[in-house]
Amino acid sequence: MAQELQLTYGMVGGGRGSMIGDPHRRAVMLDGQAKIVAGAFSNDGEKTADMADILGIDISRCYANYKYMAKAEAERPDGIDFVVVVTPNNTHYEICKTFLEAGINVVCDKPLALNYADCADLARIAKEKGLLFMVTYTYMGYGTAKYAREIIAKGEIGDVRMVMVEYPQGWLAFEGQTGGKQGAWRTNPEGSGGFNCLGDIGTHAANAVTTFTGLKIKRLLAKMEIKVPGRQLDDNDSVLMELENGASAMLWSSQIAVGYDNDLRIRVFGTKGTIEWFQREPEQIRVIDANSTVHEHHRGHPALAGDSARYNRLPAGHPEGWLAAMGNLYHSYCECVIAKKNGTFTEDMIDYPDVNKGAEGLAFVEACIKSNKAGNVWVDLDY
Amino acid sequence: MAQELQLTYGMVGGGRGSMIGDPHRRAVMLDGQAKIVAGAFSNDGEKTADMADILGIDISRCYANYKYMAKAEAERPDGIDFVVVVTPNNTHYEICKTFLEAGINVVCDKPLALNYADCADLARIAKEKGLLFMVTYTYMGYGTAKYAREIIAKGEIGDVRMVMVEYPQGWLAFEGQTGGKQGAWRTNPEGSGGFNCLGDIGTHAANAVTTFTGLKIKRLLAKMEIKVPGRQLDDNDSVLMELENGASAMLWSSQIAVGYDNDLRIRVFGTKGTIEWFQREPEQIRVIDANSTVHEHHRGHPALAGDSARYNRLPAGHPEGWLAAMGNLYHSYCECVIAKKNGTFTEDMIDYPDVNKGAEGLAFVEACIKSNKAGNVWVDLDY
Amino acid sequence: MAQELQLTYGMVGGGRGSMIGDPHRRAVMLDGQAKIVAGAFSNDGEKTADMADILGIDISRCYANYKYMAKAEAERPDGIDFVVVVTPNNTHYEICKTFLEAGINVVCDKPLALNYADCADLARIAKEKGLLFMVTYTYMGYGTAKYAREIIAKGEIGDVRMVMVEYPQGWLAFEGQTGGKQGAWRTNPEGSGGFNCLGDIGTHAANAVTTFTGLKIKRLLAKMEIKVPGRQLDDNDSVLMELENGASAMLWSSQIAVGYDNDLRIRVFGTKGTIEWFQREPEQIRVIDANSTVHEHHRGHPALAGDSARYNRLPAGHPEGWLAAMGNLYHSYCECVIAKKNGTFTEDMIDYPDVNKGAEGLAFVEACIKSNKAGNVWVDLDY
Amino acid sequence: MAQELQLTYGMVGGGRGSMIGDPHRRAVMLDGQAKIVAGAFSNDGEKTADMADILGIDISRCYANYKYMAKAEAERPDGIDFVVVVTPNNTHYEICKTFLEAGINVVCDKPLALNYADCADLARIAKEKGLLFMVTYTYMGYGTAKYAREIIAKGEIGDVRMVMVEYPQGWLAFEGQTGGKQGAWRTNPEGSGGFNCLGDIGTHAANAVTTFTGLKIKRLLAKMEIKVPGRQLDDNDSVLMELENGASAMLWSSQIAVGYDNDLRIRVFGTKGTIEWFQREPEQIRVIDANSTVHEHHRGHPALAGDSARYNRLPAGHPEGWLAAMGNLYHSYCECVIAKKNGTFTEDMIDYPDVNKGAEGLAFVEACIKSNKAGNVWVDLDY
Repeated sequence: MAQELQLTYGMVGGGRGSMIGDPHRRAVMLDGQAKIVAGAFSNDGEKTADMADILGIDISRCYANYKYMAKAEAERPDGIDFVVVVTPNNTHYEICKTFLEAGINVVCDKPLALNYADCADLARIAKEKGLLFMVTYTYMGYGTAKYAREIIAKGEIGDVRMVMVEYPQGWLAFEGQTGGKQGAWRTNPEGSGGFNCLGDIGTHAANAVTTFTGLKIKRLLAKMEIKVPGRQLDDNDSVLMELENGASAMLWSSQIAVGYDNDLRIRVFGTKGTIEWFQREPEQIRVIDANSTVHEHHRGHPALAGDSARYNRLPAGHPEGWLAAMGNLYHSYCECVIAKKNGTFTEDMIDYPDVNKGAEGLAFVEACIKSNKAGNVWVDLDY
Repeated sequence: MAQELQLTYGMVGGGRGSMIGDPHRRAVMLDGQAKIVAGAFSNDGEKTADMADILGIDISRCYANYKYMAKAEAERPDGIDFVVVVTPNNTHYEICKTFLEAGINVVCDKPLALNYADCADLARIAKEKGLLFMVTYTYMGYGTAKYAREIIAKGEIGDVRMVMVEYPQGWLAFEGQTGGKQGAWRTNPEGSGGFNCLGDIGTHAANAVTTFTGLKIKRLLAKMEIKVPGRQLDDNDSVLMELENGASAMLWSSQIAVGYDNDLRIRVFGTKGTIEWFQREPEQIRVIDANSTVHEHHRGHPALAGDSARYNRLPAGHPEGWLAAMGNLYHSYCECVIAKKNGTFTEDMIDYPDVNKGAEGLAFVEACIKSNKAGNVWVDLDY
Repeated sequence: MAQELQLTYGMVGGGRGSMIGDPHRRAVMLDGQAKIVAGAFSNDGEKTADMADILGIDISRCYANYKYMAKAEAERPDGIDFVVVVTPNNTHYEICKTFLEAGINVVCDKPLALNYADCADLARIAKEKGLLFMVTYTYMGYGTAKYAREIIAKGEIGDVRMVMVEYPQGWLAFEGQTGGKQGAWRTNPEGSGGFNCLGDIGTHAANAVTTFTGLKIKRLLAKMEIKVPGRQLDDNDSVLMELENGASAMLWSSQIAVGYDNDLRIRVFGTKGTIEWFQREPEQIRVIDANSTVHEHHRGHPALAGDSARYNRLPAGHPEGWLAAMGNLYHSYCECVIAKKNGTFTEDMIDYPDVNKGAEGLAFVEACIKSNKAGNVWVDLDY
Repeated sequence: MAQELQLTYGMVGGGRGSMIGDPHRRAVMLDGQAKIVAGAFSNDGEKTADMADILGIDISRCYANYKYMAKAEAERPDGIDFVVVVTPNNTHYEICKTFLEAGINVVCDKPLALNYADCADLARIAKEKGLLFMVTYTYMGYGTAKYAREIIAKGEIGDVRMVMVEYPQGWLAFEGQTGGKQGAWRTNPEGSGGFNCLGDIGTHAANAVTTFTGLKIKRLLAKMEIKVPGRQLDDNDSVLMELENGASAMLWSSQIAVGYDNDLRIRVFGTKGTIEWFQREPEQIRVIDANSTVHEHHRGHPALAGDSARYNRLPAGHPEGWLAAMGNLYHSYCECVIAKKNGTFTEDMIDYPDVNKGAEGLAFVEACIKSNKAGNVWVDLDY
């Protein structure tokens, strides 16, 4: 892919010690389309300055907080083309809103907010202002995931009847364990929206279902549990779902699956065949036919190509990994931002999860909470 | 294992063309403990005689129906030691009852009957008569499944918190498809008890959960669906369960999973570790520790041994397969029957699924049907 | 498959404690075509009588040694239809010869003898007498192996260019370890023919190459090594080969591969595609196309069928295992013996490794020994 | 890992359309330690200027050829800290020599030159000048590969006895196929040094053997073949090796393995255990014990840590891929260059393949060619 440095961006959050700031910056760097030139990396000014130094950012664009940053960058003739928000979940809404209102394109981590209404609000503002808004559901950036979506859309496995999706992790499986700084805000009920596991990884799983199938969730029945004594938020969630075409789905997200690291796995069963995609084996997908023959397609070959082929950075057999998935999202986003600047943008260029996908995630979470509170009953989604 | 031919048995059902008669006979033959000497293989006398000829059974012990057989064998001084019942599900109860009342030990395929009450009845009679009754939940006969149960009982993975179990098949995935003679009675509502997929394979999955964990199912919430247009019985079932210790479970059984043959898979998540067992890879189990290291143990080695080691017929690396699993059940059953004849039998010798496990299966099915009818609500199990 | 008991057989070797006697008997029993009625199970008369008792063999057909057995059975009007020879390698030749000369069909374990000349001699006698002779290269009995052979013959992967085959085991990896009774005669130079690992498992690997490809070995270059101090026979062998069509092959057989149980693996690379078959995963084969898509075919489906389909005893997804592979060899052998008795036998009915395949194994071994002694130089095979 | 931009570098080769330039630049960018500021990307001045534009390089440091570049950069007070050479194999020696003589640190692709003498020459100059020289054997940069090396060095699997290594690819499997621009210079005898597959990927395999085991190759026996009609250089190579401690090894490198993309696989068998590492599954290693239990360790956990842990950029379960492996090499190289500038460098800081490893590769190739020409005889290595 061409490397054309045409954009600049800033970051809110992602200071030294942040787990997620570095990967975002590395992902943007992959194709060299955008350069970081501004930031409000931390509430601690020292730390922000420190990071600015490391990244070679001019001290004048190193801000004490995101509000100053939005205002200042919006006023500069050479202000940032977009901002990347990688702060704790409960701050996403306010920060995103601030930048949107300042007229700046936004990239934000998921969950996009703590409730659906806030997400809808952000979607509304983005639309009114004509701004591009990406929510980083990273896993859907894998070329193989894109290809799976493509062939399901083409009808290769027929109509979708059943989906099995799971996202087990084991890092919060033990008593007294909060998972360090990362785990702390995930398991602390204050300002959490009342959910943990479901919002953190369950939304990825739900997003995989709607992204792969192209179908909305019609209704769901959820059981949210706390398995580790002393914890105050869900760490193990079982969800039954019905999709808009009548297909069923089972979703499991868990942080107490000892020995599992990050095992997002989705299997889509259609009237003609089955497709399997596992995040830990991202170079391949498996299509199974009515004869039970498993066809394993590998990234980098014409058999696994279609539109997703344009994201290949390495030849077949050279594993691309998680960073490439994130890089693919930024690649499409940057293309769109550039096109917008050039006046060549059209909606069909969007090949990344947008603000509506982010809102969909909160609609899912809210329905789950409602179902769980009512004793695991069916709840309709309306989004 | 020693081969000591000390028992004789008869069979009801299992005539030429039957899928399940041959495997049962081969499984019994594996260790040579029992020899087939009588049978009522078919309602068609011609077919029964035909099979008797093939098996070298004396024509005098080749019966026109199971009632004559039970009576005649009970009266003979050298009557059969046990009967194997491999007929359609809706006939199990009457046949088993007849033999029990005639004082003959019984082996029966699952589901044991069409409702829990009938199962309980059989259990009662067997107990009163002091007879041995095995239900062939074949998959729990695998040495690796036995070993998994053993190490969970020993606490190697701590307390059980979550279980994921699934049993997908694809052979009834298509419209108009009834799966031949085998599928016909499975998808025909008449005399079915009102269930198909759930009884046929869902019970295996539920049995795997209670056998592996040693825990009873406390309550469940089930969604039974018909995915193939025109079918009258369930072919895709999603079940949420709670076990007696508070652990949760998700169960999926399906006959519309295109490309899946017979994929019973169970994963048990404990407070200290995780254990995985897949029927299609029966020579191994995986134990995962808190460090995410996967320890794959292989049959035939001291690391995968314990009591299950006595069932090894082949050295490590020589796949034993499904027949060995069934053979292991018969091996323990024959040992018990021999011991009973010798007066050395004790309850703790039983290492096979007995009539109570069979009844448990129907309790599970009945609760699922009840839950499904009531709109997928929680239903307590009382068995 | 039908079960028609039409034959009787006897066994030489395979007394109590023998690893290989039981599996052979179980394999013959699988389809019930033949019944054991005679035996010379051990040099120890006590042990032979013991085994006869267990197997229900009439004491009059329980012989003190194989010579008496051959003579007596040949003279009986109801003498055995074939004999199974499962004794130590260095006794195979004499025993087989004795039975052939007595006019009795023979099944013998591999290696068939300690040198090629003896094998050729056996082949000659069998031919002259018009007797059927099977050598139990068990692994080629798997239905999937048969199917692989079939599709290679059909040209599905084009012309064979390269073969990678290996057969690593770990059971003799440690110093002082002889592997019990089984290992003792394998690592004892006396009467061994001067080879151990190569004859025991290397021949299986070489046989896999010629069976899969249908090509003879033209020449080879071998390095036979002793890796465990104190051992006197080879335990790790590396062989380069050229096949008659110019294809190359690398073969590795080893008993010092710690942690490997019985991992016969063969990969055949053709001008159009690649095929992979692993003994430890015998229910499937993988065909890889020029697009790097891996097509995994499973036993029991039309996609993996052809002539091999007739050997299926269980539906897809019910693992058949090693015993079924051995059973398949006996199935074809018994069919041929029956046909011979009925006068309907034709050569093309043979679907088992015959005496010529056994001789081929020794030609391979002798060439390896010659190459190794000469400093790992190329040696032509002429068989 | 910290991102401290302290170095500048230039590149020779790697213009638009080059497969390998982009990955090198992305790998250096991963940790932000060095910035590209100069280049002689192509013999075509237009293309060089084009690439300079894309990369944001000042036109004054965009050179018509590598000689001007070496001279000019050496003279600048702010000259590049190192050069990256990614040109066709037959130009490596001259270019590297030129930069070394100009006093500039060098990174070069493998094979380092077309013969051992030239490599030794480069090693000599680098030593005399006190310069740092890295050869990008990328695969040894994977954290899991580093860890495997570490635990073998610690004796976890005992003494090494046997190594199986292979590097099959399928991209040049077909007649008339040259693999585009990339394949062209690989299969063109002119200026190739007389080798293709062996130099291109066989050297990676040989390097894996010596890197994992820490042992030198003592002697080898090679068969280099041309399998595709019309080709003039080897495309399929079989090599037997003996390591300095007496261990044996089998090496296979091939470009005609249809359906294989890039399958470097190494298995090391020791007196106490076995270790397996496959490039296509780079997040894990398998250690197998004497009990045949397979312990699969995953990147990102304490169980797979040691010194290699410092290279983790992503948490466990987030696949890092090929780019991270290359990035790890650059990370260590940049650390060393920085340390050299700061006067804190010590030899034990080197955690990348240096010029001696590069020379070792050519010693291997030359011995193979010699062995092959002499009819596949043993040839000693003296390096």
